[in-house]
Amino acid sequence: MSIVKPSTLPGFMELLPKDQMLFNEMRDIIRENFEKHGFLPIDTPVIEKSEVLLAKGGGETEKQIYRFSKGDTDMSLRFDLTVPLARYTAEHMNDLSFPFKRYQIGKVYRGEKAQKGRFREFYQCDIDTIGMGELSLVNDAEFPVVIYHTFKDLGFTDFTIHINNRKILKGFFASLGIEDSMNVLRVVDKIDKIGEENVLSELTELGVEKKSGEKILDFIKIRGSVDDIIKSLEDLKIENEIFLEGLDEITQVIGYMRDFGIDEDCFDIDLKIARGLDYYTGTVYETTLDNYPNIGSVCSGGRYEDLASYYTDKVLPGVGLSIGLSRLFYQLNEAKIISSEEKSLVDLLIIPMDDCIHEGIKLLSELREKGLKVSVYTEFAKLKKKFKYADQTKVDYVIVLGEEEVKSRRYSLKNMKSGDQVEVSFDELVEKFKN
Amino acid sequence: MSIVKPSTLPGFMELLPKDQMLFNEMRDIIRENFEKHGFLPIDTPVIEKSEVLLAKGGGETEKQIYRFSKGDTDMSLRFDLTVPLARYTAEHMNDLSFPFKRYQIGKVYRGEKAQKGRFREFYQCDIDTIGMGELSLVNDAEFPVVIYHTFKDLGFTDFTIHINNRKILKGFFASLGIEDSMNVLRVVDKIDKIGEENVLSELTELGVEKKSGEKILDFIKIRGSVDDIIKSLEDLKIENEIFLEGLDEITQVIGYMRDFGIDEDCFDIDLKIARGLDYYTGTVYETTLDNYPNIGSVCSGGRYEDLASYYTDKVLPGVGLSIGLSRLFYQLNEAKIISSEEKSLVDLLIIPMDDCIHEGIKLLSELREKGLKVSVYTEFAKLKKKFKYADQTKVDYVIVLGEEEVKSRRYSLKNMKSGDQVEVSFDELVEKFKN
Repeated sequence: MSIVKPSTLPGFMELLPKDQMLFNEMRDIIRENFEKHGFLPIDTPVIEKSEVLLAKGGGETEKQIYRFSKGDTDMSLRFDLTVPLARYTAEHMNDLSFPFKRYQIGKVYRGEKAQKGRFREFYQCDIDTIGMGELSLVNDAEFPVVIYHTFKDLGFTDFTIHINNRKILKGFFASLGIEDSMNVLRVVDKIDKIGEENVLSELTELGVEKKSGEKILDFIKIRGSVDDIIKSLEDLKIENEIFLEGLDEITQVIGYMRDFGIDEDCFDIDLKIARGLDYYTGTVYETTLDNYPNIGSVCSGGRYEDLASYYTDKVLPGVGLSIGLSRLFYQLNEAKIISSEEKSLVDLLIIPMDDCIHEGIKLLSELREKGLKVSVYTEFAKLKKKFKYADQTKVDYVIVLGEEEVKSRRYSLKNMKSGDQVEVSFDELVEKFKN
Repeated sequence: MSIVKPSTLPGFMELLPKDQMLFNEMRDIIRENFEKHGFLPIDTPVIEKSEVLLAKGGGETEKQIYRFSKGDTDMSLRFDLTVPLARYTAEHMNDLSFPFKRYQIGKVYRGEKAQKGRFREFYQCDIDTIGMGELSLVNDAEFPVVIYHTFKDLGFTDFTIHINNRKILKGFFASLGIEDSMNVLRVVDKIDKIGEENVLSELTELGVEKKSGEKILDFIKIRGSVDDIIKSLEDLKIENEIFLEGLDEITQVIGYMRDFGIDEDCFDIDLKIARGLDYYTGTVYETTLDNYPNIGSVCSGGRYEDLASYYTDKVLPGVGLSIGLSRLFYQLNEAKIISSEEKSLVDLLIIPMDDCIHEGIKLLSELREKGLKVSVYTEFAKLKKKFKYADQTKVDYVIVLGEEEVKSRRYSLKNMKSGDQVEVSFDELVEKFKN
């Protein structure tokens, strides 16, 4: 028989068990935090009708999508969890309570050019709160709280949630006579990547006067404490209505965040945050790890005016955010911020001699009955091979079970790290390893 | 703007949050049990190279598969978790410890004809133990133990794990002069669906003599306790080597199962279990719910001689089993064996009056700080609408927070089921709802 080389497609992440355990641990922490904050789970299909998924259409999305037909059906793999959420909310509207708080953790697909750290299949962990007709600003403040607790629980101490409000930028641009703010926003959003000079020249290309361009640069460089920045913005005395609305919103959101008791060190206002996506309309967030700025934003989102206008004429404003878990995991691993260790799911491995396998299983059952995490090696093999397995699986303790141990019910407990051995009774074993 | 009707493709399950919570609870119990028994997690891509996934090729699989191209790449969605496991094990062989015990819980895809209770996207929950070159029969006994604990934890009390060994059937058929046992096995496997008469006539079509057909029927109808059946099989004095090997194996497996302490009421030997798949070579399992025989097998699997012969020339024998969770969930729900209730993720909802929202959030934070599961309604709305939300989300207790409560720090706690109200202090709240 001819052998097919076993391999995955390029751009598809696949982990060894030890890394998978670490990945799952992170995914569990994220899920727990989402649930703790009252977000309900949904799990939409990976495949949707192309007509539904591409209702908005256009742009990069359509090029990257995995789209195919079977029979007469034109279908596509989801490329994010937001479009499926819009479809879900519109479809099941009458069965949901609003504000509808949902989370979804799942794989999404983008046929991007394969490159280091970019994946064609990756996990997104999304939360969104959707209002029916309206949704209070308190929700804009709750999302940083969820990020805060999630990243704390993931073990990060130094991270910053950067907050801005698009209306502030849009209103400021309008006060300079710039009406097409979307393109200007996109240029501004790139400043950390392309630098000030390039921002200026791209703005000029868009027809922004040099003086206005410089004012924009000065504006987005306003620094200081949250209160300082709010004060500076007030002091600008800009009379544009949208600007003032944005300023009022961010002031309220910061106020609510303080009510939530979020650590002042963990957030700031950053006026250059704009987010590339055009559907954000108010508050926007990005989150960076203070000591690893190169990783970029690890969690982003914002407020949008209308989630599902392609599927319903009901107006559904919302706030959402997304953690790109596969990418985050990859980057943390690459930067050695996290590292997986081979670790055993059990605390103790019973190694029975070949003629004591029955007794090994019985001991296993008795110990499991007591709630211990224990396993038994049941292959017929030389003792050396059995110990090699113990070594490889990184179990901490081992008992070798021979006729004598079976008779005496006393066991020689070997610490695999130190090599120390102590003789213990069944009860002492239980005592040592329970919990 | 024209509206696209929001809908999913036929054959794709999608649940409301309350059902999703129940589904996730079942999935968590399964995962916990798999991990408790020492199975390590893996998570292979949903998309694989067609060349790899279809290395075996042929049959129904190829017709049902979702296969498509992007650029030059011919790819397919996985139709089970076994072929990806084979590829994974062969690819990462040098980084794995054998016996390699892994679990995978994930969605698989089959473009079957859509029909009630059959899904085109569904969850499988698989465990397999893979040996390098050889694998002891103890593993065949461990799988029923995992099923046993999993189904107990899922809340089932009456279920039966049916065990058989294909070698017993194959050897018995050979003793009747039937060499092509595979087709006969497939016919026998259908007996519960098509009945004895049809089995007899299909066997005749295969060229089996009527007398042999009747002997087969008598054979697979042998009933009794596990020990009775083993005795009956011994008493047949069949001298066929394969038969005797099968009989020896099942005797050993039952012995090991007893060592594991599995409840005798929960398993039997059922000689008509053959499993349709041709790759099982020894022990086979099916599991049925005693009070719901119509649901059929809820968990099946068995022993195979060589997992990954298409990808490596190393011989990798294994034992595996699979729970088809989507189908199981659907059937349990349809039969009203399980039923989801709208239930709240929190124990208590704070409903602040419109002018006390800040104080509502502060109270929320203080209570969360104490570990309580609590939420706050933060939309500006009439009290009636706020209570409607409390009703819809099925939260058990509510506090309305007005100026007076903020000042006095005493709260009127309303039981939403009984309508009773009691006045409580902050500490009394904490006391009542902690844990």
